[in-house]
Amino acid sequence: VVTGTVGSLGEFGLIAALTARLPQHAGVLLGPGDDAALLAAPDGRVVACADVLVQDRHFRLLPGGGGDVGRKAAAANLADVAAMGAVPTALLLGLVAPAELDAQWLLDMATGLATEAAETGAAVVGGDVSAGPLVVLAVSALGDLQGRAPVRRAGAGVGDVVAVCGRLGDSAAGLALLEAGLGPRHPDLVSAHHCPRPPYAAGPRAADAGATAMIDISDGLLADLGHVAAASQVHIDLAEVALSPDDRLRAAATDLAVDPADWVFGGGEDHALVATFPPDTSLPPGWRGIGWVHAGAPGVTVDGAVRVGHAGWDHFRETR
Amino acid sequence: VVTGTVGSLGEFGLIAALTARLPQHAGVLLGPGDDAALLAAPDGRVVACADVLVQDRHFRLLPGGGGDVGRKAAAANLADVAAMGAVPTALLLGLVAPAELDAQWLLDMATGLATEAAETGAAVVGGDVSAGPLVVLAVSALGDLQGRAPVRRAGAGVGDVVAVCGRLGDSAAGLALLEAGLGPRHPDLVSAHHCPRPPYAAGPRAADAGATAMIDISDGLLADLGHVAAASQVHIDLAEVALSPDDRLRAAATDLAVDPADWVFGGGEDHALVATFPPDTSLPPGWRGIGWVHAGAPGVTVDGAVRVGHAGWDHFRETR
Repeated sequence: VVTGTVGSLGEFGLIAALTARLPQHAGVLLGPGDDAALLAAPDGRVVACADVLVQDRHFRLLPGGGGDVGRKAAAANLADVAAMGAVPTALLLGLVAPAELDAQWLLDMATGLATEAAETGAAVVGGDVSAGPLVVLAVSALGDLQGRAPVRRAGAGVGDVVAVCGRLGDSAAGLALLEAGLGPRHPDLVSAHHCPRPPYAAGPRAADAGATAMIDISDGLLADLGHVAAASQVHIDLAEVALSPDDRLRAAATDLAVDPADWVFGGGEDHALVATFPPDTSLPPGWRGIGWVHAGAPGVTVDGAVRVGHAGWDHFRETR
Repeated sequence: VVTGTVGSLGEFGLIAALTARLPQHAGVLLGPGDDAALLAAPDGRVVACADVLVQDRHFRLLPGGGGDVGRKAAAANLADVAAMGAVPTALLLGLVAPAELDAQWLLDMATGLATEAAETGAAVVGGDVSAGPLVVLAVSALGDLQGRAPVRRAGAGVGDVVAVCGRLGDSAAGLALLEAGLGPRHPDLVSAHHCPRPPYAAGPRAADAGATAMIDISDGLLADLGHVAAASQVHIDLAEVALSPDDRLRAAATDLAVDPADWVFGGGEDHALVATFPPDTSLPPGWRGIGWVHAGAPGVTVDGAVRVGHAGWDHFRETR
């Protein structure tokens, strides 16, 4: 435990304290402390992606909440790696923070980042820090396909089964409950919002099972499947009966007098994985069928009809 | 050329416009547009680092200035890769920008990022965007050692020659001139501040020549050599005669009534490379000797004496 602000630690004190919270693994040939890190890439290829989280947009600066924010920042990236069919190996952290921020919050965040990374076998291997007026976490992730072909958004074929693995709508429900002051009545859903639990291992498993297209759900099921439909030039139809909200979502929706299906179809940030598989595929453990791929104009329907009101999140328009 | 704000383009319009400005290369197996990019890593290892630039700290939002800011953001990362002895292959961009920002500024920034990357053979392969109250550019870079051993900060040996390649103090002089309103009298130095030109190819060349330690100068020659001295547990003594400010720096210093040597020893952001070589090394083209490595308590002196007043930049304390 440290006391004081980031400014009292200073840049180099902060870097030393952060680095001390970042365990490494055998694939990290050089970890933090040099101009760059060096990672093993035995596959001869490396998967790479980036994600930015901004204070008061993606998270709040709650006392004691740093750990969950770190886990969430890691999860967004690690899920992107998993959605390619790869296993994460490393994260890099580009960090902006005000000098007057409580240092412990940042150290908890780093611990959360490292903890979530470790769940996939990855380590936080480097980064950079700068002062700024608010906290920004810019995380990038590297991953290893272990010889697999990457699973892209394009690739869904007519007749394929659409299947999902992971939570749908829990994070959105948790946020709605928090905003309404009803968080304490539904701690599971609030926890899903603060700390998503993407099914990382399901990504490589889906690739091994022959997934033809895959994406992680960060903007909402319909919006993200829309990206798959557009990239693959296919029409996707979902079966509402396969996407029925569970009892927890129904109970929360009753408290808020809303339709829980809106969370299932439109909620982002759960980082579930959705993929398409050839029709004769035996779906891997944890995956469940929710629809089919059809020929036709790119788009996504539910029981044959367009579901309105869920265009997905646009960061610059702040509309759904 | 686009007109309007980032908000009028929207998130997906912005991503499409940015992506259109990012040429790829043969080592990019999958570029922007999927959950993650895929890069060739024929060496079986990958170098990775990150750098964050914050509006009003690392750059200003000047009309027409986006291109230089993009080049500067790329340079900071590419120089870190070069300082390991590696060749850059890819950049990722984590971007925060206000919805009301002029979209053309950002597109110019992306073009600058891609242009600087291309100078090293690298491409901008992916990233993420979010709205926020100010512009933050969080860039990460990947690189290929092409079979070389990485050149670390630790490794300088007693008796080694200290040598530098690239500009020293030009960026700091340019900033001082701008702050004094004297920029137009010294366009070369102002340009060095807006757009550093690190000697990227000198990094792998130094590694091939047997460099024992290397770092890029981002905080100032004395501060960054201090990191080498600490990591290598050696004392470094520089020869002031070998670091005499050139005529351009002298002329600018006369105009500002300051000591130009302060820029040479303390100025950051030029991203020159400084390295140590075994004493019998024939220095590669562009490298010039500036001192020697001695046994003793870790530290850096000039002609045997501590040079005061240049502790290096601390982002959270904002002091030198």
